[in-house]
Amino acid sequence: MKSMILSVGTELLFGQIVNTNSVYLSQQLNSLGLDVLHHHTVGDNPRRLAEVIEHSLRDCDIIIATGGLGPTQDDLTKEVVSEVMGDTLLLDKEILEKIKALFKKINRDMTENNIKQAYLPSRATVFHNDVGSAPGFALADKGKVIICMPGPPRELKPMFENYARPYLEKLTDSKIYYRMIKTFGAGESWLETELFDLIDNQTDPTIATYAKEGECALRIASKRSTEAEAAEAVNAMTAQIKERIGELIYSLEDESLYEVVGKLLIEKNISISCAESCTGGLFSEYLTRVSGISAVFDRTFITYSNCSKIDELGVNPETIKSFGAVSAEVALEKARGVKAKSGSRLCISVTGVAGPGGGTADKPVGLSYIGLVFDDFEDVKEIRSRYSDREANRYYSMLCMMHMIYGMLTD
Amino acid sequence: MKSMILSVGTELLFGQIVNTNSVYLSQQLNSLGLDVLHHHTVGDNPRRLAEVIEHSLRDCDIIIATGGLGPTQDDLTKEVVSEVMGDTLLLDKEILEKIKALFKKINRDMTENNIKQAYLPSRATVFHNDVGSAPGFALADKGKVIICMPGPPRELKPMFENYARPYLEKLTDSKIYYRMIKTFGAGESWLETELFDLIDNQTDPTIATYAKEGECALRIASKRSTEAEAAEAVNAMTAQIKERIGELIYSLEDESLYEVVGKLLIEKNISISCAESCTGGLFSEYLTRVSGISAVFDRTFITYSNCSKIDELGVNPETIKSFGAVSAEVALEKARGVKAKSGSRLCISVTGVAGPGGGTADKPVGLSYIGLVFDDFEDVKEIRSRYSDREANRYYSMLCMMHMIYGMLTD
Repeated sequence: MKSMILSVGTELLFGQIVNTNSVYLSQQLNSLGLDVLHHHTVGDNPRRLAEVIEHSLRDCDIIIATGGLGPTQDDLTKEVVSEVMGDTLLLDKEILEKIKALFKKINRDMTENNIKQAYLPSRATVFHNDVGSAPGFALADKGKVIICMPGPPRELKPMFENYARPYLEKLTDSKIYYRMIKTFGAGESWLETELFDLIDNQTDPTIATYAKEGECALRIASKRSTEAEAAEAVNAMTAQIKERIGELIYSLEDESLYEVVGKLLIEKNISISCAESCTGGLFSEYLTRVSGISAVFDRTFITYSNCSKIDELGVNPETIKSFGAVSAEVALEKARGVKAKSGSRLCISVTGVAGPGGGTADKPVGLSYIGLVFDDFEDVKEIRSRYSDREANRYYSMLCMMHMIYGMLTD
Repeated sequence: MKSMILSVGTELLFGQIVNTNSVYLSQQLNSLGLDVLHHHTVGDNPRRLAEVIEHSLRDCDIIIATGGLGPTQDDLTKEVVSEVMGDTLLLDKEILEKIKALFKKINRDMTENNIKQAYLPSRATVFHNDVGSAPGFALADKGKVIICMPGPPRELKPMFENYARPYLEKLTDSKIYYRMIKTFGAGESWLETELFDLIDNQTDPTIATYAKEGECALRIASKRSTEAEAAEAVNAMTAQIKERIGELIYSLEDESLYEVVGKLLIEKNISISCAESCTGGLFSEYLTRVSGISAVFDRTFITYSNCSKIDELGVNPETIKSFGAVSAEVALEKARGVKAKSGSRLCISVTGVAGPGGGTADKPVGLSYIGLVFDDFEDVKEIRSRYSDREANRYYSMLCMMHMIYGMLTD
């Protein structure tokens, strides 16, 4: 079936935000076996929006629209879609109660314009919004389907996952099964070279590589008449890939590295504490995204000033003087300091030059050291990031910390 | 004049790359006073590409296309554009020499398919590619213009800047000026209600609202014959808006709250240390994104376990027992504890229930307390987030911490 992705919002046409929804939805629709023929963005202009929808329906069976469902006068997607599909908007009392409850919960008066969000096309299949006020919906007419969802990614993603994806799965007759294999430690072109013959000869399953700051994912997908057949094909290919690059794989289930590490720590009941500096809390922020981590995560010291490294972690001022704050020696003393303070079984530290300033010939931007103490075992690693901007360097240091723990816990 | 941005490339429809060209070009075209009516992405399919171009030319005077100019069989933008505009491709010998020289420079044999890049529509205005092999061009016919440029951003940007922008400047007679006003503390619907008459009567300047997790931005834009006139109109409207909702505004320059706070701390040379728990390092991570923050940021304690709150920050175990770890009392003791340890002038703490688990009737998910000590002044705030997911709650708590500091430093 042929589909297109329609983004509604003048802010996109002004270049104020990057359209990440189109990327997310393209990946999702492709994984469902739907062809994506177009991405189209229009502003909050009802005539133009109607024209784009009518024109797109000639070519496509399914339109996935995001944006323009909010409470303001600008938000007109619902009105236009309803009209094009020959439907009318009705007040959905259940949705209205949900919106009222949401405002009550946050102790704010609900302004009149919020009632607008409770109006939906009479024949719509409603998609509830579990994290915001605007509901989404699917509206079908004469073999064509339009799905409307909110623009903010944090509302769109759970709505797609919980409501739109199951709805779309029922519309397609072939079944897609896919697996995301996550790797760390090698670039995309290297992986492609290692797997060249598999990628080049692909018909089904297909193999695609996706690179993302230090991580690289492989998407293995098969489209067959039953899910069992597709899964079998994907599993056979996964086994071949594991044989070639098994040591780089940390997840066969599309998990992030921090999730895998957090779950391993919880599962093995290993207490953890940290000392950060260049990462400024990024490592702890990611680790504490894992729900239930409080069972093992004890504390972190973000020691930005030299003085705080000495005060809080007992780093020897002479070590800083001799080797510099960014050194293997200081990284190890910091990790030992966290151990002494917290008594956690696993203590990890990082010190580095995130940039953009502060680099020298000896200690360039992107250099960092990770110290690790696990029971009686100690280790230090030197990391050289190939990125030049501050955020990318911090992110890469965080990934390397996670991966060092991953190696420790799975050896 | 009306324009649209056309991106050509199947990889975009697979969701393999983010379309940052559309963002860049939108900003550029808007700054030139051109209205951008559409973003459209199609794959490497000549029939569909021709159809999109023909359809877009009904509505728009100018099409800015990127991608599909390379040497491979997939790259067909030039062929299609030339045909739609009634022109034919001719070999441009000067361009061919440039491509040959480029290959010689990088010591690679030029493959036969690269000659394709030296063919251009006979009536085209050529845009030289100073960093790659594929040239761009503008082709005009019957009052319509199509500009074609390469897809890679590092080739597109200099070509736009050096060739396309001067070409377009000659076509337009009006100039756009705009300002983003950033606010915190009120929802989009509330803001729109407060500014209803201004928004409703808008012709020029225009006012648009953009909501983003707890923050809300207003875009004030004017299009006049000179930039000075447009700026004057925007400034007059800004003054009116400041009168109505001035207390909610934290930036007139499109900055993020953390940037404004970080710069204020640096500018006023106020040392800062923190105690986080539910936010897991998110506050410190944002604050340390600000380059130069090491001049004032000293240390952070992420005290996740109760034990660490007592050990590191001297929180009284009795306070935790009587009021719970998530309480105004503990928040204040934590802030005082950071002050005692760090000696920083401004110390801020947070404690809360980020969820999804851990909520009770008394202390629901989304509740948090922020403690602040600034020299001899002390304050505690109770925060109730309207979000239900962990990440959004943590993000909102971080914003509230930033805003509490902002209030303290600008009072």
